[in-house]
This record gives sequence, C-alpha cells and structure tokens, in this order.
Amino acid sequence: MSDFQSWVQGIQTRTESTLGLLLPDSATTPERLHTAMRYAVLGGGKRVRSLLAHAAGEMCGSLAHRVDLAAASVELIHAYSLVHDDLPSMDDDDLRRGKPSCHRQFDEATALLVGDALQTLAFEVLSQPDFCDDARRQLEMIHLLAQASGSRGMAGGQAIDLASVGLNLSPAELEYMHIRKTGALIRAAALLGAQCAANLDQARLQAIDHFAKRIGLAFQVVDDILDLEANTATLGKTAGKDAEQNKPTYVTILGQERAHTLAAELHAEAVAALAPFGDEARRLIQLADFITRRDY
Amino acid sequence: MSDFQSWVQGIQTRTESTLGLLLPDSATTPERLHTAMRYAVLGGGKRVRSLLAHAAGEMCGSLAHRVDLAAASVELIHAYSLVHDDLPSMDDDDLRRGKPSCHRQFDEATALLVGDALQTLAFEVLSQPDFCDDARRQLEMIHLLAQASGSRGMAGGQAIDLASVGLNLSPAELEYMHIRKTGALIRAAALLGAQCAANLDQARLQAIDHFAKRIGLAFQVVDDILDLEANTATLGKTAGKDAEQNKPTYVTILGQERAHTLAAELHAEAVAALAPFGDEARRLIQLADFITRRDY
Repeated sequence: MSDFQSWVQGIQTRTESTLGLLLPDSATTPERLHTAMRYAVLGGGKRVRSLLAHAAGEMCGSLAHRVDLAAASVELIHAYSLVHDDLPSMDDDDLRRGKPSCHRQFDEATALLVGDALQTLAFEVLSQPDFCDDARRQLEMIHLLAQASGSRGMAGGQAIDLASVGLNLSPAELEYMHIRKTGALIRAAALLGAQCAANLDQARLQAIDHFAKRIGLAFQVVDDILDLEANTATLGKTAGKDAEQNKPTYVTILGQERAHTLAAELHAEAVAALAPFGDEARRLIQLADFITRRDY
Repeated sequence: MSDFQSWVQGIQTRTESTLGLLLPDSATTPERLHTAMRYAVLGGGKRVRSLLAHAAGEMCGSLAHRVDLAAASVELIHAYSLVHDDLPSMDDDDLRRGKPSCHRQFDEATALLVGDALQTLAFEVLSQPDFCDDARRQLEMIHLLAQASGSRGMAGGQAIDLASVGLNLSPAELEYMHIRKTGALIRAAALLGAQCAANLDQARLQAIDHFAKRIGLAFQVVDDILDLEANTATLGKTAGKDAEQNKPTYVTILGQERAHTLAAELHAEAVAALAPFGDEARRLIQLADFITRRDY
C-alpha cells in the first residue's frame, strides 16, 4: 500500500470513528430515528470531503482533532443531502453505498427526518463550545458551511438540477449548477480544514479556495463520466441514472471524449493553484489525482 | 386596541419585515425555490416564537434589532418544520395558514428543498458576523438552536409523534413527546431573546427557562383543544386532523375538561415562575395569557 493509500485509510477510519461518536446512540430515544441516522451516515462512502478537509488542514498546520469535527460537520451535510436526494419525490433511488437507500430501509417519513436531523447535527457539531479557541473564527466557519449548504449553495444547485431535467443546458449553465450542487460543499470542506489552523495564512486560504473550486468541478465531471462508464456494483449506487432521468451531464453536453479532457484540464488548474507551496501541497495534489482518476 | 394587542401587531410586522429581508429575493436564482421559500415563510402565522423572543428580550434589556435576528432564525426553523410536516409522507396536509401548503402550491421536491434551505438559512442568520459583540455567546445561541431543533429536540419529537399513531400513550409519554416536538423550540425562542442582552442575568435566564417550558406545553395542550373545538376556517389549517389520523392528543388522553384544566395549571405555573420580576415580566405574562386563551 502506498503512503497515500494508507493516509486515505487512516482518515477514513478516523472520520468513521468521529461520526460514530457524534451521532446519537441507536438506543437513545427516538430509537428508530437515531438508528436510521447512523445507517445513513456510517459504514461507507469515500469521505472525499473529509479527506480534503484533512489534507488542507495538514498543509496549514491545523490540529487534526479540530479538523475531525469540521470534516464531520461537512460529511453530515453531505449525508443529509444524499438521504433527501434519494427520496421518491427527488431522484427516487433505491441504492446508496451498495445498500438500500434510507427510505427503502426504513420509510419515507423517517428518511425525511433523518436528513433534517443530520443537517441540524452538522451545525450542532460546528457550534460546540470547545471546538476552537477563536470564537470569531468559529462563527465564520459556521457561516461558511451554511452558505455552502443553503439555497444559494448545495440546496440551490439541487433545485436547478431538478428544473433542468430534459433541458439542453449550455456548458456554462451546467457549470453554474454544479458549482452549487457539489462544488460549494467540496470548497467548504477544504476551507474549513484550513480554517482550523491557529495562525491562518490568507495566501494559503486563497490558494486552497482556488484549488477546491477546480477540483470540485473535476469531481462532478468524473461523476458524470462514471455514471455512464461504470457499473452499479462498482459505484454502489444506480449507474446510468442521469441518462435514464434525462438529466443534462458533462457527458451528454460535451461528449465522452471532451468530458475526459475537461476533467484533466480542471485537475491541472487545481494542481497549478498549489504551485507556490511546493512539497507542502503534496497531500492535496495526491487527493486531486485520486479524485480525478477514481473508478467509483 | 389594547396596549398588548398593538405590541403584538408591532412585533408581527417587524418579524415579517425582518424575514422578508433575510429571505433571498424571488428573482434570485433558483427563482422557483426562492419564491417557494418566501411563500412558506411570509404572509401569516401568529409568530408566537418571535413574540416570546421579543418579550423575553425586553425583560432582559436586549437590543431589539438583535432580537429581530434571533427571532427570525427561530421562525425559519419553525417554518421549515411546517413545510416538511405537511408533506404526503408525514401529515399529508393541504392547508397551512389558510393557503395551500407548500407542496400543494409548488411540488413535493420543491417543498423538500424549501424546508432544507430554510433550516440552513436559520443557521446562516444566527452566525452572521455582525449579529453580536460577544462571539462566544453567539456560539452558545447557535448551539442552543441546534439542540432544540435536532433529533433530541423538535425533529425527535416529530419522530415520536409518527411512531405514536394509534398508540395509547400515558400523559407522561405525551408530555415527553411535546417537550421535544413544540416545547424545545418555544423554549429556545424565549432564551435566545434573553441571550441577546449585553449583560446576561443568570437568574432571569433560569426564570425564563422555567416559564418557557411550562408555556410551551400549555401551547400544545391548547393546540390539541383547538384541533377538536375550532373549525378549519378559524385555524387556517385542517381541524380535526389529529383525531382523524388517530394521533394521541391531550384531549383524547385526558378528556376535554381535564385538558382545559391542565392548560390553566400550566399557565399558572408559567406565570408564577416570573413572580420575582414583578411588573417587568408584564409582556411575558400577557403573552402567556394570549397563548392559553387564543382561539386559533
């Protein structure tokens, strides 16, 4: 196993463990809701957002136990969005991370409340009194997470996605949607990891911001390619879903070849943004490679 | 119009105006989502939670423009919960505040995202950098709102409510549910109003806490009575819904007469908690009267 692979596994393990501690125990009332929350969050996922938070945090000298909480709050937002996206009134998906989606395993009402309560838990985690010495900075982090998640961020991107079914979007319109739908939270993950550092370096923060915007888009382009090229078993979610639902994707709009080229270009731009940091940016660059070259 | 009635109208007007400014404009992309968010929040509601925040704030010397934001954040959480509660997989209600419920006016997917984005907006509002001079206090307020709203608060109460359909709850079990489902957010409203004060007085805070817990329960008992005794036009939501859905209520469990007695007892306990503050507690007491004697 490469040094990078073992780093990834280490972060995935501590992310799982942090989330397991932050989520209410299944035996706590209401048991069914808490069981379903744990089901929706634990036991899978690439944890890309947590990996980004930790890699950015390491580059900035953040304390890892702080990044654990910041990363967990982003993963909770991400998990809530998956649970709600899978609901029948949205993407109506039966499969998530290789298991029945939350509303299939439990029921629709429970899945609705699971998403609601996971979002709340993200803000409960990030507002913990002992999280950060600098209360003002902590407020900025909460504000950043809220802006990334709300109607001008992730939820707004989801709304544009819904409205775009069957439409011929331009590449610019598709980018506008994805900057919100997946990009905003990926950007927030990297920035929150960096903001956990005691001495925040604005130049680093801006470089990470630039990096994260490009890699967030690359992530989505690769997602669209995988939706077409990979199979359901490898993905752990239903492959071919976008095409079936007549959703515009980078592949349908640009074609397969140009989508691959775009992913490579975005990857190169992301990596270039980190040039001033030399070897210190190693993890973030490895992560950019991982995100662009993954097959699931 | 009495002095109290004109105070209520004044707070309702400024709550509406604050929420109108905080909600994204309908012309902001995604337009449909933002239009639906404004539809779900503006133009109605008693604004009981905002009234409580302001009355508690006035008693503690809070700056009114700060209480505006704290109250708005609580009203946003409340509005999100109503939008999600009305969905077909939950209470399946067509009517809210005398208008079609959000998913009836728009569609289910939009209503789901409206609720999601309203919750996020509540935390975006409460984490605004210029909200409070004391960042540590502001973090406590965000944490309080999150705890009141999540799986051990409002969302958890909703889950217990769902699970209790058709069951014979004891009065203690019913109270356990309502302390979470409606009580937690009502308590948070009053406490957040008080916490906006520059010099926070712990004795006052504890009295308000005690008051708010009792009046929160009284609110629910009266709600259950009104669900039985009032008609749909007066309520602005479907009357008789709980009985029809076979949900346990204070009326079905205690009977009508004992439910009235309980509301009166809770009201008396709430008012008694404010005794040490004499005339300064006037607004909160008037509000307790209003909550217990309302007919809608």
